[in-house]
Amino acid sequence: MYINAISHYLPSTLIQNNYYTQLKGFTDEWIFQRSGIRQRTWAADNENTHTMAIEAVASLVNGLPRDISDVDLIVGATYTPYDTVGTLAHAVQGHFNIHPAAAVTITSACSSFINAVEIVEGYFATGKSKKALVIASEHNHSYSSEDCDQSAHLWGDGAGCVLISAERCSPGDIQIIDVHTSGLGHIGKGVGGICLKPSAGGLTMPYGRDIYINACKFMAAEARDIVEKNRYMLDDINYLVPHQANSRIMDHVAKILGLDASKVISNIEDTGNTGCASTLICLSQNWQRFTKEDLIVVTVFGGGYSSGAMLLRK
Amino acid sequence: MYINAISHYLPSTLIQNNYYTQLKGFTDEWIFQRSGIRQRTWAADNENTHTMAIEAVASLVNGLPRDISDVDLIVGATYTPYDTVGTLAHAVQGHFNIHPAAAVTITSACSSFINAVEIVEGYFATGKSKKALVIASEHNHSYSSEDCDQSAHLWGDGAGCVLISAERCSPGDIQIIDVHTSGLGHIGKGVGGICLKPSAGGLTMPYGRDIYINACKFMAAEARDIVEKNRYMLDDINYLVPHQANSRIMDHVAKILGLDASKVISNIEDTGNTGCASTLICLSQNWQRFTKEDLIVVTVFGGGYSSGAMLLRK
Repeated sequence: MYINAISHYLPSTLIQNNYYTQLKGFTDEWIFQRSGIRQRTWAADNENTHTMAIEAVASLVNGLPRDISDVDLIVGATYTPYDTVGTLAHAVQGHFNIHPAAAVTITSACSSFINAVEIVEGYFATGKSKKALVIASEHNHSYSSEDCDQSAHLWGDGAGCVLISAERCSPGDIQIIDVHTSGLGHIGKGVGGICLKPSAGGLTMPYGRDIYINACKFMAAEARDIVEKNRYMLDDINYLVPHQANSRIMDHVAKILGLDASKVISNIEDTGNTGCASTLICLSQNWQRFTKEDLIVVTVFGGGYSSGAMLLRK
Repeated sequence: MYINAISHYLPSTLIQNNYYTQLKGFTDEWIFQRSGIRQRTWAADNENTHTMAIEAVASLVNGLPRDISDVDLIVGATYTPYDTVGTLAHAVQGHFNIHPAAAVTITSACSSFINAVEIVEGYFATGKSKKALVIASEHNHSYSSEDCDQSAHLWGDGAGCVLISAERCSPGDIQIIDVHTSGLGHIGKGVGGICLKPSAGGLTMPYGRDIYINACKFMAAEARDIVEKNRYMLDDINYLVPHQANSRIMDHVAKILGLDASKVISNIEDTGNTGCASTLICLSQNWQRFTKEDLIVVTVFGGGYSSGAMLLRK
C-alpha cells in the first residue's frame, strides 16, 4: 500500500493554558509539565466532526494533480461523532460526490486511524478497492466535560486525511510496509479507562494512571514488534510518530525504544490531544520533511483499550 | 466464509402500539398499516448497547461445543453507541477475555452488519484473521426522540451475533457466498435523511419519503445484483431477509424482485426496527428453519445513505 497524498485541518481558535487557570486554577506550567500542552485547537460553533473532515479533504484535493473520482472506499475514523447515521465517511462521500464507493465509519478510540488503514488493507486484499480515502476527525470539545479534572484541559479538535492506493502511483508516494492493530479490552481498566458515553456525560478519564502505564507499554511494544517483524532494527527508525496523548508518555516510549528525542514527531504543544487524528495530522505537518529511504513508525494507544502501529518507508 | 454459529438477544420489555395512542393519538391500526409494527422491544434501564451484545454472545457461547478463544477479530456494529471509546467490540472482548484479537466498532447506520461482514472478509483475505465474531447491537430507545412523529414509534432494541470462519468448520455451517456494500452519501437526502446527532437531539427522520423510495430501490437492486453476479436467478431464492425498517418497504422490495411473500422473513411486527441488528436477529430466529441447499439473501438500506447485501447458502 502507498500513501499518495495527505492533508489536515486545524481550527483557528486556540485556547491557551490560562483558560484553565481561570477555570480550575491549573497554571500554564502545571499543565505543560504534565502534558506538554501550551494550547489546544477548538472547533468554532459552526464546525463539527464532518465540517473539519471536509476541510481536510478539500485541502487534499486542491493539492492533487487530478480529482478523487477513482476513490472506491471511504473510511471515516472518529470517537467523537457528529452523526452516527449520516456518518463522517458518508458526509465526505456526499460533499465530494464520490461514487461508486463503499463507505464506513469506525472507532477504536485513539487507535482508530490505524484500524482504518488495516481495514483498507483488507479491502485491497479482496480486490474490492484499489484506492481509498481515510479521514480521521475529532471534535473532542463537543463531548469533553469541564468537570473532568483529569482530562478537560487535554483535548484539541482537528482532522486529517490520506489517499491510499494498492499500487505505487508516483515516485513521491510513501509505502505502508506494514500495519497492525490489537484490541486490548481485556487488560487493565480496559473499557472503563476512558469513557465517552454520549447519553451519559461525555468524555471522562477516570483511570489516567492505568492509561499512562499501558500506553507506554503497548505503544513501545507495537513499535518494536512492527520494526522487528519487518527485519529492521530500532536504530533504523528515522522518525517515530506516537499518538499525541501526553508528552511524558511519548518521552517514555522513546526512552524504552532507545530513540533520541530528535526522532520523535509531536504537535501536542500547539494542538492538544486531537484523538485518533493526532498521528495523521503530525504526518501531514511533517510530510515535506521526510526524505528518500526514511523509515517512519506510527504507534498508537487508545481508550477501550487498543493499540496499533504502522511502518512507513519513503 | 462460513457462519458457524448465530445468536441474538431481545429485551423482555414490550411496548404495544397503544403506548403511542396515549402519547400521540396514533392508533394501533394506523401504526400497523404504515409500518407492520404491533409492538417493539425496549431495553430496561440497566441495559444498553454493551449489555445486550454481551447477552447475545453469552447465548452464542452456551450453544457451542467449545469456547471462543480462537476468535482473532471482533467487529462491533452499532449506530446507537453506549460508549464510543470503550466500544461495543472492546466491551465484548473484555467480558469474554478474548485475546489476542483485533477489535473495532463500525457504523454505516442500518447497513452496519453487512459492512462488518465485509470488513471480516478483508481480514480473512489478508490472512490476519481466521475466525471472527461480529456483533450488532442497537439501543434505539436511548437516542430516539418522542418528538419525532415520523420515527419515534418505529424503534426497537436488540442485539445479534455471528461467529464466522474462513474455512468450513462443520457440516451445519452456512456459507457466505458473497457480500457487498455501497456508500450512498451522494444520493437523495443522503446524510440528512435520518440523523442521530448525539450532541443535538438524537434520532430523527426528517425525510421519511426519500428514505422509503431509496430503500425500496436499493434493497431490491442489491439483492438482484448479488444473486445475478453469482449466477443464480431470483427464482432460486428460498428466503429474503430484508432490513426490518418497515413492512411496506419489505413488501415493495419482494414485489420488485417477483418473490412470494412467504419467502420474506420478518420480525418487525414483534420487535420494531432494531436497526443494523434487525437482519441478524431475523437470521438467528430462523436458523433452524433453513435446510440444505437453501439460498438466502440478506439485503439492507441504511440512513446516510448506504446499502448492502449478503448471499448465503446452507
